[in-house]
Amino acid sequence: MRDVAIIGVGMIPFGRRDQDTLVDMLAYASLKALDDAKLGEKAVDAVYVGNMGGGILQHQTAIASALVDRLSLLPAAADTVENGPASGGSAMKNGVLAVASGYYDAVLVAGGEKMREVTGWRATDFVATLTHPEVEYHYGITLPGMAGMFTRLYMETYGLTREMLVAIAIKNQAMGALNPYAHVEMNITKEGILDSPHSVVNNPTVADPLHLYDACPVSDGAAAVLLCPLDQAKKLTEHVPVVVAGFGQATDTHTLQEREDPTDLKSVTLASQQAYKRAGIEPKDIDVAELHDAFTILEVAESEHVGFFEKGEGGKAALAGETKLGGKIPINVSGGLKARGHPVGATGVAQIVDITWQLRHELPKGRQVENATYGLTVNFGGFGNNVLSFIMKRA
Amino acid sequence: MRDVAIIGVGMIPFGRRDQDTLVDMLAYASLKALDDAKLGEKAVDAVYVGNMGGGILQHQTAIASALVDRLSLLPAAADTVENGPASGGSAMKNGVLAVASGYYDAVLVAGGEKMREVTGWRATDFVATLTHPEVEYHYGITLPGMAGMFTRLYMETYGLTREMLVAIAIKNQAMGALNPYAHVEMNITKEGILDSPHSVVNNPTVADPLHLYDACPVSDGAAAVLLCPLDQAKKLTEHVPVVVAGFGQATDTHTLQEREDPTDLKSVTLASQQAYKRAGIEPKDIDVAELHDAFTILEVAESEHVGFFEKGEGGKAALAGETKLGGKIPINVSGGLKARGHPVGATGVAQIVDITWQLRHELPKGRQVENATYGLTVNFGGFGNNVLSFIMKRA
Repeated sequence: MRDVAIIGVGMIPFGRRDQDTLVDMLAYASLKALDDAKLGEKAVDAVYVGNMGGGILQHQTAIASALVDRLSLLPAAADTVENGPASGGSAMKNGVLAVASGYYDAVLVAGGEKMREVTGWRATDFVATLTHPEVEYHYGITLPGMAGMFTRLYMETYGLTREMLVAIAIKNQAMGALNPYAHVEMNITKEGILDSPHSVVNNPTVADPLHLYDACPVSDGAAAVLLCPLDQAKKLTEHVPVVVAGFGQATDTHTLQEREDPTDLKSVTLASQQAYKRAGIEPKDIDVAELHDAFTILEVAESEHVGFFEKGEGGKAALAGETKLGGKIPINVSGGLKARGHPVGATGVAQIVDITWQLRHELPKGRQVENATYGLTVNFGGFGNNVLSFIMKRA
Repeated sequence: MRDVAIIGVGMIPFGRRDQDTLVDMLAYASLKALDDAKLGEKAVDAVYVGNMGGGILQHQTAIASALVDRLSLLPAAADTVENGPASGGSAMKNGVLAVASGYYDAVLVAGGEKMREVTGWRATDFVATLTHPEVEYHYGITLPGMAGMFTRLYMETYGLTREMLVAIAIKNQAMGALNPYAHVEMNITKEGILDSPHSVVNNPTVADPLHLYDACPVSDGAAAVLLCPLDQAKKLTEHVPVVVAGFGQATDTHTLQEREDPTDLKSVTLASQQAYKRAGIEPKDIDVAELHDAFTILEVAESEHVGFFEKGEGGKAALAGETKLGGKIPINVSGGLKARGHPVGATGVAQIVDITWQLRHELPKGRQVENATYGLTVNFGGFGNNVLSFIMKRA
């Protein structure tokens, strides 16, 4: 198995991008990654696209075939990979395996989604297509609904409070306000969304006990990375190469109700354990993490399941500032899904891009984690029924 | 790079399967492959699903996550791979790379599609989602329409005749009539579909000069294979292991109109050349082939582009019986897409299953190619804009 390096990364600002098609967005992010990699004459051998909803939202399939032509990368191989909101992570995994296998040398991985094509319940319904058709979707359950029930159980079992969740929302929106690629660039305050009488209007309930500012926005966006074998990376790029030190992927029951303890996200634990084992490190070695905070509760739960905090301690740690820049383990310095946005197919790739910038030490003061060597991501598919985790290392 | 063996295969009868969901079909085919592999206590590490239309046709995404739970293979990794009508081939490729990389030891690849959910123009429209949205789909072009124009050009350039195409239709339906998994099990005659006055009614024009019996049916179906490293295969299975000796994948322009010579299917040539090179063999070494005859014209064109016949000679060879069982190179002994059916996500995997049976010498007399050692497949995505070719070898 060959070591795989990330030699180029690119992202476009997430948000509402009515003027762009899905393939436009993927192409813009890909061109940035190709530019960043300074590949020169070297050809791209294969392209992977992470996308969940081209068929449903754009009535378009074979997105990877469209992209490879659009980028003039013919006759490179091209596949679209779908794994719900972890589609980007799954595309990345298969890109890494393609290089690791020795079959392909230069592989482009792009993730993108154009979700603002639909609004309101249609956006929620689109994501709910990943639920079990007979015993979940049929009864009207949605992802916010699941997250709400999960939060209530966490509150009752571990004493999680709304104040802890609000601390995460404030932290991530504050970081998003500094991130030029973020969809939401607005600072919020505890008074505005929790304490003042107006917070009932400012921050209405979405799925009790979760409120508007606990949820990520519905976004358009794309991100891309260029992979090659580590031994070729140093000849090809002027950047410090970033190595994919390890990754893991694990599945869990399709339905939440079948899990012995629904607050136990086994897939997050397993995926991150596989990644740590491959990388030969432990949670304490991670300097910066991008977790999948589609809802604030998920940042809490994932921060525990990947081993940063004991079970039930993640919310307290967030409230104490331990997950802020400068804290014990900075989480979602990008603003996370909460502020960067969550165009589902893009998210897993965007996390890799943000960690790569951290490990290259390229971010400005106020966003850069000092001396970051190891970074971790969690890309959460389904309601934790298909999760990927990557560990990157500054080479 | 590790050599990859196929140690289990399974298929369900293609056709109209109203009683089954998409995941049902994938599960049935997968259980057959797992049974066939006799894996014993050994766990499946990863699952790949080839599927094009779950989102559009079933309003369901993350099919691989659903399947892995349904099969009780948790916490195996699971990804859905989409590449239009070559989704099965793309799933297979990524399964092969996953084993070749050394990362996973036992990988299940399942392909499936439930297309009879929609009928008439909706089925054609579904497949047309792979065309270029602005310069093709928008103007109403469909895959049968493209195939019709392609056929006319072939007739004018190479002297292809309807009689040659009819010979392929008759051959493939005759073989389908012997295949218990085939959707169409009906023999047809030259008189019935070409010569008699009734043929105007029996075999109406679909897209001039293509008629009804030039086209594959709209089918439901699924197929699956189990992969593992060759060095472990002999310990695990009682079957003769079949090795993936080589594969290739190549893309071409999204739109047919941009190709210098639209009758030149560069992607088929390139994909098969990559496969031959990896396998270290030449076209003359192939004993049996499954080509992607979504339309009879494609069997002609592919048989030339993979090097079995000179350009323009494929139709004459078919008419002369050279592609029949016992001929120079038996093509689509299964009945092909024409008779087995073409549930798009299933096709690429079904081709691998049929070739595996041939190379194991497991088929009954009248369907078995004597002493078959090498088999080749072509899985044709888009209108030739993303093609995969596999070469399997009896180990």
